Amino acid sequence: MTLDAALGAVADPLTRSALAPASDHDAAFDGWWRGRVLAGGFRVVPVPFAELSRWGFDPVSGDLGHDTGGFFTVRGLRVTRGEHGVHHQPVIDQPEIGVLGILVKEFDGVPHCLMQAKMEPGNANTLQLSPTVQATRSNYTRLHEGAGVRYLEYFNGTVPTRVLSDSLQSEQGAWFLGKFNRNMVVMTDAEVPEHPDYHWLTLRRLHSLLATDNLVNMDSRTVLGCMDLALGSGDGEEATPFRGALARSYRPPAGPASPPAARHTLTEVTSWLADARTRCGWRSRTVPLREVPNWHRGADELADGSGRDFRVIGVRVEAGNREVTSWHQPLLAPRGEGIAVFLVRRLRGVAHVLVQARPEPGLRDFVEMAPSYQRPGGINAAVPGEPTAVRTEALSTDPSRVHFDTLLSEEGGRFHHAQTRYRVVEASDALPEDPGPAFRWLAVHQLMDLVRHGHYLNVEARSLLACLHGLL
Amino acid sequence: MTLDAALGAVADPLTRSALAPASDHDAAFDGWWRGRVLAGGFRVVPVPFAELSRWGFDPVSGDLGHDTGGFFTVRGLRVTRGEHGVHHQPVIDQPEIGVLGILVKEFDGVPHCLMQAKMEPGNANTLQLSPTVQATRSNYTRLHEGAGVRYLEYFNGTVPTRVLSDSLQSEQGAWFLGKFNRNMVVMTDAEVPEHPDYHWLTLRRLHSLLATDNLVNMDSRTVLGCMDLALGSGDGEEATPFRGALARSYRPPAGPASPPAARHTLTEVTSWLADARTRCGWRSRTVPLREVPNWHRGADELADGSGRDFRVIGVRVEAGNREVTSWHQPLLAPRGEGIAVFLVRRLRGVAHVLVQARPEPGLRDFVEMAPSYQRPGGINAAVPGEPTAVRTEALSTDPSRVHFDTLLSEEGGRFHHAQTRYRVVEASDALPEDPGPAFRWLAVHQLMDLVRHGHYLNVEARSLLACLHGLL
Repeated sequence: MTLDAALGAVADPLTRSALAPASDHDAAFDGWWRGRVLAGGFRVVPVPFAELSRWGFDPVSGDLGHDTGGFFTVRGLRVTRGEHGVHHQPVIDQPEIGVLGILVKEFDGVPHCLMQAKMEPGNANTLQLSPTVQATRSNYTRLHEGAGVRYLEYFNGTVPTRVLSDSLQSEQGAWFLGKFNRNMVVMTDAEVPEHPDYHWLTLRRLHSLLATDNLVNMDSRTVLGCMDLALGSGDGEEATPFRGALARSYRPPAGPASPPAARHTLTEVTSWLADARTRCGWRSRTVPLREVPNWHRGADELADGSGRDFRVIGVRVEAGNREVTSWHQPLLAPRGEGIAVFLVRRLRGVAHVLVQARPEPGLRDFVEMAPSYQRPGGINAAVPGEPTAVRTEALSTDPSRVHFDTLLSEEGGRFHHAQTRYRVVEASDALPEDPGPAFRWLAVHQLMDLVRHGHYLNVEARSLLACLHGLL
Repeated sequence: MTLDAALGAVADPLTRSALAPASDHDAAFDGWWRGRVLAGGFRVVPVPFAELSRWGFDPVSGDLGHDTGGFFTVRGLRVTRGEHGVHHQPVIDQPEIGVLGILVKEFDGVPHCLMQAKMEPGNANTLQLSPTVQATRSNYTRLHEGAGVRYLEYFNGTVPTRVLSDSLQSEQGAWFLGKFNRNMVVMTDAEVPEHPDYHWLTLRRLHSLLATDNLVNMDSRTVLGCMDLALGSGDGEEATPFRGALARSYRPPAGPASPPAARHTLTEVTSWLADARTRCGWRSRTVPLREVPNWHRGADELADGSGRDFRVIGVRVEAGNREVTSWHQPLLAPRGEGIAVFLVRRLRGVAHVLVQARPEPGLRDFVEMAPSYQRPGGINAAVPGEPTAVRTEALSTDPSRVHFDTLLSEEGGRFHHAQTRYRVVEASDALPEDPGPAFRWLAVHQLMDLVRHGHYLNVEARSLLACLHGLL
């Protein structure tokens, strides 16, 4: 069977796009991207809080907010962590659900994703590859007023589309308070107008671009990570045993319905997570920012006394050579790189990923499934009780076992130069098969079964799931 | 094939128990229950707040709590409801996850559930049929100290068991703040000691007992509603067209893996719910109870000025002729019966249930899938924008269309005489096929696919799902 014929037999458009050969659009990507970078962007300048126009500290609570009460507010968070005592920190409170959407359309029978070259003030390199749409709830619900978000009509019901993937997902539990975004992929047959800031790409090309430092932004990665793909292959022709085991961990694109073998049933996995959530016993509530002990507000930054955790700073965003309005806003600035690692092991020939039931202060259910090893930027202390073996494996530099290692940015609209090193590492025999009660080995198709529902995989794990797709 | 042989072919123990013929244990139920009722219980006497031992109002916030800070606290809740303004009310804050567990064991090849005759102070009739275990997190995690909860060892990992069902689920969003309980069903082959307050029943018998007023308690109902059962039948021998359509809405017990036809795909259903959550835009935070406008604390009750909403009262619980310790506690007392209705319609021969994407102030995601029609006790005003046709159908008295109509109690440990009329009503042609954007018709097997994950079906919908099982 030719590849064309094989692809034709795959019903799911996303899987077809992920298996497709390179298209003309893919080939034109590099030139388009260079053009976007040369077109220039804006300049971001740190400024003292006193110079932030329309943003200020509430005289009573000390909370940092916009004068409309909109956008987001930096408040205090108090977390009672069972036996581990009380923890305080600032947190970003942005209670509305935003929409992150990728529009899909077929060209020559191959579905392509419409991606955007988008500037965000916190990005280390300004311009990154974003979903078709990033919209606030206000944009989304203001149906008849021309909300000004390009292509939004494909996501809010104005233009009929076919929904391929749609779920609400958490964002950084270390920095956001109960933040959820809606991750959508919709397909259209309608004519889609072109725009110089947007470009069509196959999923296969998108997956491969994840290996470029600071190119595919966080919003794109989480939408990619929420897709249900059937990329499995049983032909055993993969280049390496690792790739073969990884391919066997996905559902086959047009094979029998039964999924590949996995170490635990889904009931066992969700039961393990329910148990972790029951035992966790964390409780949280917001407190006035000025009541957060050991954090101090200076003229230029809000920071903790130890100088280890993140800072909150103010920036002025200036128009460059394009017509971008100038504005001010606060950003959360971590002090160093974060790290997020999927350890992978072959169990009976099938790749399994080690996930951790990990509590984070800002998650609505506190515990979600996190990467095998995860540290937010700037905090390098070990978590009490975390097995050393997991950390050692996660930081391995053995080139035969490190299958992915890329520096990627977190949300540039809220975070200043927040970069995380994402890694996929094959575990060595030094790692015990059962690293502890907080850990479980899951097949890739199980991660995809769960991520459809939200409240399961945290944002770092969803990024890594997207990165895994690019290793096939 | 004989029934015995047919049952033997069903791998899932819960489905086998739901299809089983009456057992000796089932036959002995009535006598055992009468004995438990005659054994007597305790007496519950309303007392003024000032007489509540160990409970009191915080001098600053006015919150009503226990002197240890444990159990639960009555606080104020402030909800900003987008275009519908700001809403205040008292709310029960009990942040820890409790465990509701049913133990299953085979007798003569048929799995039975161990049920408990349990007294709760708020029950109108004191004694109701409860799960094997109702435990707090403190009971659950105190592994080695003999927590004193009978049969807990089967649920906390001490005795090895097979987990049949395990998920975290919300409770009343009108009265609780973000409350979650863990709903577990575990199976054991070990010897289980007998106790006079406990009795083994098949699932089939349990399902039929749901039709008795105030017998099967809320905790039992939600655990029953979370079970994934394959009760479908394709033999067309059902007694009525309604039963036939209902049977076709379940997965068949040993048939082909593909589920019966449904009007919408699961992706369409979860996308509809994600859209409703995005558009909802509610936000909530706790406030001091004394800052809740229009609610007043008297000597005997906390109540709203209009006298329409619930009251908070204090009770003294007195030992009867058994050795039950006497204690005091507050209870939330609704002023009248609640109502929760599943409207059912045959679509291409398959029964579909009308669910509503309904926001409730105390739910963590605000919107879950609620019954077609739902009112908490004592609040009978129509919700703005709710279609009259849904209400009219839900309150139908046409005996040919009312398939279930039973008065059942809500959690007797927190609520005083909180009874809800649960109904399953076949919709007439007067109900439009599309009653509005807040509604969707789902097949029963789809409800079961979703309820496995939590955050989907609210507690009233889970009760009704259990009641549906009894109609087969």
